[in-house]
Amino acid sequence: MADLKSTFLKVYSALKSELLEDPAFEWTDESRQWVERMLDYNVPGGKLNRGLSVIDSYKLLKEGKELTEDEIFLASALGWCIEWLQAYFLVLDDIMDNSHTRRGQPCWFRQPKVGLIAANDGILLRNHIPRILRNHFRNKPYYVDLLDLFNEVEFQTASGQMIDLITTLEGEKDLSKYSLSLHRRIVQYKTAYYSFYLSVACALVMSGENLDKHIDVKNILVEMGVYFQVQDDYLDCFGDPETIGKIGTDIEDFKCSWLVVKALELSNEEQKKVLHENYGKPDPANVTKVKALYKELDLQGVFAEYESKSYQKLTASIEAHPSKAVQSVLKSFLGKIYKRQK
Amino acid sequence: MADLKSTFLKVYSALKSELLEDPAFEWTDESRQWVERMLDYNVPGGKLNRGLSVIDSYKLLKEGKELTEDEIFLASALGWCIEWLQAYFLVLDDIMDNSHTRRGQPCWFRQPKVGLIAANDGILLRNHIPRILRNHFRNKPYYVDLLDLFNEVEFQTASGQMIDLITTLEGEKDLSKYSLSLHRRIVQYKTAYYSFYLSVACALVMSGENLDKHIDVKNILVEMGVYFQVQDDYLDCFGDPETIGKIGTDIEDFKCSWLVVKALELSNEEQKKVLHENYGKPDPANVTKVKALYKELDLQGVFAEYESKSYQKLTASIEAHPSKAVQSVLKSFLGKIYKRQK
Repeated sequence: MADLKSTFLKVYSALKSELLEDPAFEWTDESRQWVERMLDYNVPGGKLNRGLSVIDSYKLLKEGKELTEDEIFLASALGWCIEWLQAYFLVLDDIMDNSHTRRGQPCWFRQPKVGLIAANDGILLRNHIPRILRNHFRNKPYYVDLLDLFNEVEFQTASGQMIDLITTLEGEKDLSKYSLSLHRRIVQYKTAYYSFYLSVACALVMSGENLDKHIDVKNILVEMGVYFQVQDDYLDCFGDPETIGKIGTDIEDFKCSWLVVKALELSNEEQKKVLHENYGKPDPANVTKVKALYKELDLQGVFAEYESKSYQKLTASIEAHPSKAVQSVLKSFLGKIYKRQK
Repeated sequence: MADLKSTFLKVYSALKSELLEDPAFEWTDESRQWVERMLDYNVPGGKLNRGLSVIDSYKLLKEGKELTEDEIFLASALGWCIEWLQAYFLVLDDIMDNSHTRRGQPCWFRQPKVGLIAANDGILLRNHIPRILRNHFRNKPYYVDLLDLFNEVEFQTASGQMIDLITTLEGEKDLSKYSLSLHRRIVQYKTAYYSFYLSVACALVMSGENLDKHIDVKNILVEMGVYFQVQDDYLDCFGDPETIGKIGTDIEDFKCSWLVVKALELSNEEQKKVLHENYGKPDPANVTKVKALYKELDLQGVFAEYESKSYQKLTASIEAHPSKAVQSVLKSFLGKIYKRQK
């Protein structure tokens, strides 16, 4: 496993070197240094789960057959494309959310000399994906499928981000519009497609599969993505900031979090009033009141219940899938996130 | 001509309707309204030169043969993809440059309720391009060429924007790094590829041409793009704000403008001192001193000279091209921008 990660990181260095010599641009030392620093700061510092999953999934789809060096490189390159996509979203989301820290370090736009140049850096990260795909997949029969896949998933993610942003609009703080169905829609589009479906879709495409024939796999992975985001919402409030690498601000930011949706569902009139009066305000005193209510409603217990139910349901859907290889891909995914602490 | 524009605008409405029903996303009334307002505000309000040029160019490449309705629609759709690309760049550039007005109205991010959500709206605009391409060109033999073309040109534009931004970095205001070669590099990448090459490239691809065989056309159009941006730099200072639809701030913003580069080239030591002391400061008194120096150095005359020389050179390159149809495309382009006032 440590070995896989070090191979994966070697591919990062190779892809980075190519990008810094991309013949479509006339580089200067200054611009090359800027991009290299920006990549190193934003791309490889996460858990790399999404990227590594492409290799894992591809291996499982090959049912134990040893991968060639070329296959490992290509699966890793696709994995890095997802990590690049993630970096692009995070750099821009941090600007829009006015965040402070990310992965245990200051957000990129808060670095000296960066500021709003970070918006263009985000764009550059996004542009690197088709450069990588062109460099390594142009002659593959599935090249156009990869381009379509990344385009569709990016569109879905940006659309999910849009509903998240317009629901949380400053000056229209109206808790009554928050519901489980809105939460689900945001989460499905903003997170699930790119964090869950995309890795497996990349592995399927590389295996020569037609994605139109794998709608069931997509649905299971989207379901898993929703579960993952509920965990995220939970950890934002109840997780250890040291472990998750950031200080949660969903309450202050009036986020449509699974916790507030559940709290609204479980509250009596008096408790609802507490939520309406305290949710979405920057003052720590307000935040404390919201957190106290969450404990009063035993949201920790409600979450534990949700977590085990989701696990059972997902396991049942996976076991209903006709292919054992696909089953093992999906089970490996689920195993990685079940009861995660970060 | 008015007829062409009204046909083109009808295609905008058709494309917009499709995007607002895109089955890859689960729309709500609120999100559909948001995207429609955002599109209407940002996409169709410019001069539409880039977009209309695709249809013009395609017609000229067909050497007088009447276009079918389908061909007009497809050429218009590609034209709109360029207008969408332009809208995406402008929305994000305005945020990064902290601009106030654009096309005679407040910048999108300055609209009430928008703010930094504009960054995600920019991303959405960008994502609409592959949606449009997929909706209308998926079954064409040149579909993948279109995807590659838009990807490469966007990468070049973002790279040009990067050198522009890092050269103008706050706190490192050093005029001595400004030169004609830096100016050229910024302009070539930031503007010329998407504003000049891209329209003709779209028309060539639609005509079944292989772009690798048209490097000479690319070079001439990039040359024309540089000339266009020099005009833009000139108009920023000497143009009529009413006519160009914005108030220029290149001097305040310490931009690597053709004017300051030329001024540095033509200044004696004393005049250079005036530039170093006054360029890139927000105070109107500093701006006035820079403008006075520009007049003292007769930059208006120097520009007129540059303009006529560029015209002669471009005309000579165009007339050296073997194809009369391509010649007419390039001449039509040049005719549209020569001595423009906006």
